[in-house]
Amino acid sequence: MDEKAGSDLDDLMAAVRRFAEVRDWGQFHSPKNLVMALAGEVGELCDLFRWLTPEQSQRVMEATDEGRPVEDELADVLIYLLRLSDVLGVHLGKAALRKLEANELRYPVAKSRGNPRKYTELD
Amino acid sequence: MDEKAGSDLDDLMAAVRRFAEVRDWGQFHSPKNLVMALAGEVGELCDLFRWLTPEQSQRVMEATDEGRPVEDELADVLIYLLRLSDVLGVHLGKAALRKLEANELRYPVAKSRGNPRKYTELD
Amino acid sequence: MDEKAGSDLDDLMAAVRRFAEVRDWGQFHSPKNLVMALAGEVGELCDLFRWLTPEQSQRVMEATDEGRPVEDELADVLIYLLRLSDVLGVHLGKAALRKLEANELRYPVAKSRGNPRKYTELD
Amino acid sequence: MDEKAGSDLDDLMAAVRRFAEVRDWGQFHSPKNLVMALAGEVGELCDLFRWLTPEQSQRVMEATDEGRPVEDELADVLIYLLRLSDVLGVHLGKAALRKLEANELRYPVAKSRGNPRKYTELD
Repeated sequence: MDEKAGSDLDDLMAAVRRFAEVRDWGQFHSPKNLVMALAGEVGELCDLFRWLTPEQSQRVMEATDEGRPVEDELADVLIYLLRLSDVLGVHLGKAALRKLEANELRYPVAKSRGNPRKYTELD
Repeated sequence: MDEKAGSDLDDLMAAVRRFAEVRDWGQFHSPKNLVMALAGEVGELCDLFRWLTPEQSQRVMEATDEGRPVEDELADVLIYLLRLSDVLGVHLGKAALRKLEANELRYPVAKSRGNPRKYTELD
Repeated sequence: MDEKAGSDLDDLMAAVRRFAEVRDWGQFHSPKNLVMALAGEVGELCDLFRWLTPEQSQRVMEATDEGRPVEDELADVLIYLLRLSDVLGVHLGKAALRKLEANELRYPVAKSRGNPRKYTELD
Repeated sequence: MDEKAGSDLDDLMAAVRRFAEVRDWGQFHSPKNLVMALAGEVGELCDLFRWLTPEQSQRVMEATDEGRPVEDELADVLIYLLRLSDVLGVHLGKAALRKLEANELRYPVAKSRGNPRKYTELD
């Protein structure tokens, strides 16, 4: 793969769409069904991490037999997330930028340093 | 936002990293914890879709009071997925491309048309 | 099995505890880890139902090849839920009774008939 | 509550059924929808535990402001799990007993002591 391969969300979304369309899977890909598929993939991530300590989870990519399944699951989550966004007509990347901007206000740096709870939950 | 804003996964990942680092949240962001955070956000997507019929789910973006929360949750899922990939050192987009290639073999078009189950599950 | 076998939550919780203790699995069964295990099992349920229409989901127990996996997953969810409640010191059944009582107030019959949203969300 | 209140799964299932029926919620309670509702509740449990260390998760019930929400979520998971089993016609407790028996074979004590992976995964 060249250096920038896989970096463009629009290209990835189009590739996922082609994969589904050529198999005539649109009939299964209602947003509701895709949310369930997404939940299933995240469940598999939970399975891979459930018995690891936080410290072990930091080193999970070092062992091939653990790292490869993790990478595969991350990929599956992105694939279903892109497909879901596509059928909903949502530009996933722009939505993320907007959310990050909103989060700047919800988690002001001075109040949030070292504390992952929302500003409004802190008092 | 300009047209290409939010399309580059590497830029998005860097923005998410900065957001976390400036708040000193690295201490909370073990892969294990981030998998749980991801599962929490996908759970919120499930909540938004649970009582909808598949047909209603197709039209969820048409109503502002339903569409905006859906968009926000999709964004949250991407944000945690990028953060998780970042702390694991996984290039999420390349992993997705590799998985799509592997899926071409697991779901050959001739066998998979109109059937979303794996080739090996079909016999 | 006799008619009442499996009906007593306290007995089931004790059986699950013995299963874990004799294998010395207490070391893995922190509440945090068990929540992840629970999320993994519910993810498998999502996988079993993701491509079914609501109508097909009504008939899933009629086909042995589909019904048995569903029953197994329901069992797994209960097993981890009981184990989690046990290590937390929560009486799961009493908690459910209390929650049902609270829900009587949150979802008054007159306002909730045919509408599954919370009373406070309706206005 | 008397000592045995909440201990009988059949009684709990009947109470959950009455709660739904008097509100005419059967129309929303397809197995597919209830699986999504279950996933949503487990997502809330993930939210409550995501930033806790395993050690902190052991003590979560000691603080009222943390313990009560955890207990409420455990209750919600059981309530939806009972409702799902009910509409599917599955006796949840008997299914759990059967699964525990099957697990005795899949996780033989001699091979599983101190190791939570399946016997077949160990070699």
